[in-house]
Amino acid sequence: MPYEAPLPWMRLALEQAAQASGLAALPGPAEALQDYSQAVLEGAARIAGELLSPLNRTGDEFGAKLAADGRVQTAPGFASAYQRFCEDGWTALAAPSEFGGQGLPLLLAAATTEMWGGANLAFAMCPEVAVGAIEALRLHASPALRERYLLPLVSGESAASMALTEPQAGSDLSTVTTSAVPDGDAWRLTGRKIFISWAEHDLTANIVHLVLARTPGAPAGSRGLSLFVVPKLLPGARGESARNDIRVISLEHKLGIRASPTCALTLGEHGGARGWLVGELHAGLACMFTMMNHMRLGVGLHSCGVAERSRQLALSYARERRQGRDASGVPATLIAHADVRRMLLTIATLTQAARTLAYTAAGLIDVAQSEQASADARTQATLRLGLLTPIVKAWCSDIAVEASSLAVQIYGGMGYMAECEVSQLYRDARIGPIFEGTNYIQAQDLLNRKVFGDGGAALGDWLEQMRQAAAVLPADEPALRPLREQLPLECAALTTAASHLMQLRASERDLTGSVAYPFLQWLAVTAGAWQWALSAHTAVARPKDPLSRAILADAAFYAAHILPRARASAAIIAAGASPVANASSELF
Amino acid sequence: MPYEAPLPWMRLALEQAAQASGLAALPGPAEALQDYSQAVLEGAARIAGELLSPLNRTGDEFGAKLAADGRVQTAPGFASAYQRFCEDGWTALAAPSEFGGQGLPLLLAAATTEMWGGANLAFAMCPEVAVGAIEALRLHASPALRERYLLPLVSGESAASMALTEPQAGSDLSTVTTSAVPDGDAWRLTGRKIFISWAEHDLTANIVHLVLARTPGAPAGSRGLSLFVVPKLLPGARGESARNDIRVISLEHKLGIRASPTCALTLGEHGGARGWLVGELHAGLACMFTMMNHMRLGVGLHSCGVAERSRQLALSYARERRQGRDASGVPATLIAHADVRRMLLTIATLTQAARTLAYTAAGLIDVAQSEQASADARTQATLRLGLLTPIVKAWCSDIAVEASSLAVQIYGGMGYMAECEVSQLYRDARIGPIFEGTNYIQAQDLLNRKVFGDGGAALGDWLEQMRQAAAVLPADEPALRPLREQLPLECAALTTAASHLMQLRASERDLTGSVAYPFLQWLAVTAGAWQWALSAHTAVARPKDPLSRAILADAAFYAAHILPRARASAAIIAAGASPVANASSELF
Repeated sequence: MPYEAPLPWMRLALEQAAQASGLAALPGPAEALQDYSQAVLEGAARIAGELLSPLNRTGDEFGAKLAADGRVQTAPGFASAYQRFCEDGWTALAAPSEFGGQGLPLLLAAATTEMWGGANLAFAMCPEVAVGAIEALRLHASPALRERYLLPLVSGESAASMALTEPQAGSDLSTVTTSAVPDGDAWRLTGRKIFISWAEHDLTANIVHLVLARTPGAPAGSRGLSLFVVPKLLPGARGESARNDIRVISLEHKLGIRASPTCALTLGEHGGARGWLVGELHAGLACMFTMMNHMRLGVGLHSCGVAERSRQLALSYARERRQGRDASGVPATLIAHADVRRMLLTIATLTQAARTLAYTAAGLIDVAQSEQASADARTQATLRLGLLTPIVKAWCSDIAVEASSLAVQIYGGMGYMAECEVSQLYRDARIGPIFEGTNYIQAQDLLNRKVFGDGGAALGDWLEQMRQAAAVLPADEPALRPLREQLPLECAALTTAASHLMQLRASERDLTGSVAYPFLQWLAVTAGAWQWALSAHTAVARPKDPLSRAILADAAFYAAHILPRARASAAIIAAGASPVANASSELF
Repeated sequence: MPYEAPLPWMRLALEQAAQASGLAALPGPAEALQDYSQAVLEGAARIAGELLSPLNRTGDEFGAKLAADGRVQTAPGFASAYQRFCEDGWTALAAPSEFGGQGLPLLLAAATTEMWGGANLAFAMCPEVAVGAIEALRLHASPALRERYLLPLVSGESAASMALTEPQAGSDLSTVTTSAVPDGDAWRLTGRKIFISWAEHDLTANIVHLVLARTPGAPAGSRGLSLFVVPKLLPGARGESARNDIRVISLEHKLGIRASPTCALTLGEHGGARGWLVGELHAGLACMFTMMNHMRLGVGLHSCGVAERSRQLALSYARERRQGRDASGVPATLIAHADVRRMLLTIATLTQAARTLAYTAAGLIDVAQSEQASADARTQATLRLGLLTPIVKAWCSDIAVEASSLAVQIYGGMGYMAECEVSQLYRDARIGPIFEGTNYIQAQDLLNRKVFGDGGAALGDWLEQMRQAAAVLPADEPALRPLREQLPLECAALTTAASHLMQLRASERDLTGSVAYPFLQWLAVTAGAWQWALSAHTAVARPKDPLSRAILADAAFYAAHILPRARASAAIIAAGASPVANASSELF
């Protein structure tokens, strides 16, 4: 059964995200959404279902192969699918029109990104890296570099990679040792990078590597890093001489996303790979974060896709597999069993909550970059985005792991078979919480920088908005009572907890380390409830909409079965640092 | 790094389980524990670490291969390891001495079962099936069958399989269609079975299949099923003629436990496989449940092993991997980071709680079967075991999934590599919640049969015992306050919730289906807190014991970070049936 984009739910999420992000108030983007949503969503759904989804199992089985000459062969069908993908303009959707893009809102592109991830996560990672690279180059590179690289990246003629990690420098990039020395107008880079996704393949002739490196005399630590464009093919040159001094020395064998070539690279075995500086010297980390923040949203969107795909496979199986009897004793399919519906509802309501939050983050990027928005609106959007990015990356990827695991459970023994797509999803999903900054790094970013950074102001605004969404739910709808009552309580408790943590953090060693992750979970599950409150509000206003009954049932389920997780997180945080701090490392 | 049995923690769990099960009060078994524990644990630890653990990765890589002649080849080293395993007597540990066993308490064998699962889960499943088969034959088979099959099963010369599942009969066995027709003193069986673990291999010459089948004129449904011994080699015959009419038609390619051959079998392609009835006609389900209950405990123990192995690999990596800086800014290994310790403590405290509960279940089987125990003690042990078996199967297997996932997270990108053992554990662990009755079937068994079955009496006794364990914790130990205060509250809330559910279940359709699983989770996490209360009590009494500081830190962590999950479960259950019942299947 090929991937089928859940268009009604995606439209609901787009509508809600346009409102929540403020994009709906901007005439240009709002009009673009209005005019192009249907065509884009339906076209993307077709590509995801007909082109990418059928390659998902074959990609997993084939993996990617490294030949003796250093070339990387991708799975059968990937190269031609990529060509079609580019020809149809999917790489250019949200790119600026001055570089050949279609200039559509990132919010709309977000729905397509989710589709690619749901249909074929390993494939989807390739165009997603380019989106990040386009942003980094657009905002930080010189006009000459922009001129040279943006057009082919936007058209998909060139692919990109993000080369940060080294064997000794994983989550902590301060120890990066790849060196860059000046060479005329350019630089020569020497070093080793590992775990680089799509750093070599046969989908495109050229690959634009963005490489983090250290220049002579640069300060130690992450403040001494600079970002370089290091293309696979040197500009202007022709034939074999065109190859830059970069070599893939191995591909990793991974638990999942097996069709995505994960490369170990050497740069500069023959005198140095030629590279060009992006942005200011020693400002590499800032440039890299432009890209990284896009990638984090990308992980969130792809993870929503994986969760969604888990939902649709599990639902389809639950509808067809005959097993046992229903509560009245009649032979039944799996879906008649309450526990199976409980699991399906868990997947579905988490996925939709994650989707609306991820789309909202995309809409906030649009607003933050829009010339139609007021300076204040842009600042507010940037602050809200700062809170949302780590939540989207971490929570959505956790949800993909949970959803794929529940899908395996619903399939039962069949789900444990290697050829069953849900078992692949279970393996594929597991990368999400690890890469582009582990989920703990997200939690730390959320609490230390985004919440404490402005004294809790942006968080307070957001929680107040959540509280108001609950307050306007109709009082005469009993199924919505738990949401109407519990959501404001969580908002109040989060406000108190955040200010309490802010007071204690200086004096209690290990405090933020101990509670950052439960704090992120608490805020995320509460924000999910906020999104369900917004959806419920819409559903009540549109009693004849075919989706409305399902929305109300889902919102009630989320409030009853998912939101209670907030109580566990709150209790963990109330215990403070001591349960972790007192367990010193020699006690393990 | 090979598996290393956590002997101090296993001894603590054995001691606690001997008390909690009542085994410590029985002179014979208590003496056996006293006399043999050290030798057995140390010997088993050596076998697990030196013999089985080194075969775990190779087994996963090789899988199992089916040749054209129907023979199944296991991974290199498995056959000779099995031979050594049997020669050293590990298959015979808890088997009755009249059939060549060593007659040691099952409680002691439980620790070894955990070790096998932790060192090499795929291998461990083979001897574990035999343990279940021995129990079924010992309790239900005729003297002649016992005579013929028990000795070779106990010595390990014969292996066993449990052939229940058919393509149309997964969790629901009532639709089993394999037929058995009388043939002299025996029966002839015809049918197909799927998902049969270790039903064919090269570790032993003979394999004793226990097959569920339907006899002519038997009632429909599960009450028409009978259990048969169907040996691979026919008794008395020699050479090729000795082969029974059973054939493996395929092996499954699985997500994990890849070295364990999972077979699809046909019986009776050439006139019928010869089988002998075990127990009464139409009493097959009862006989099968003897075996199944043992297998469920086995899944729980193996899952503890997988969780333990996750802990030790993650701990070892966290101690050696240099990354980032600690809270005071000094370059550090992973374990210096509070969030890594939080994850390690989550794995460690869940694993030890699961271990003590699983060992307690084993001890209860000893007591229930002991001639030294009073009739009342045996009845009480049987009732408590009834509550514990589904919890041990479901909760321990959930914990193995969670622990292996956290271990992958602690390893970061390295944990996502296929050759990294933690990524194998993540795949291996996922079978636990599925087989031997899905975890929801366990939850349903717990709530509908074990809790409601006696009007909540056995549950009430247990909760009262938990309450008392909290009450005797010293009031002057601040780190233990959350445990001392929260555990009794959970006991009271569980009592109320159970009696509430008992009243409502007749009138609310879908109620038990909706809440059984959260109920199991709630009771399990509370029972885990009970075990930590018992450990903490011991630690306070033994201030000089080197384990005591770690126990107190772990108990405090469990109370602060794990027990709060009970609040989420309680809130879900308080919402009743409607959140699931109102989401009718057409709304999905």
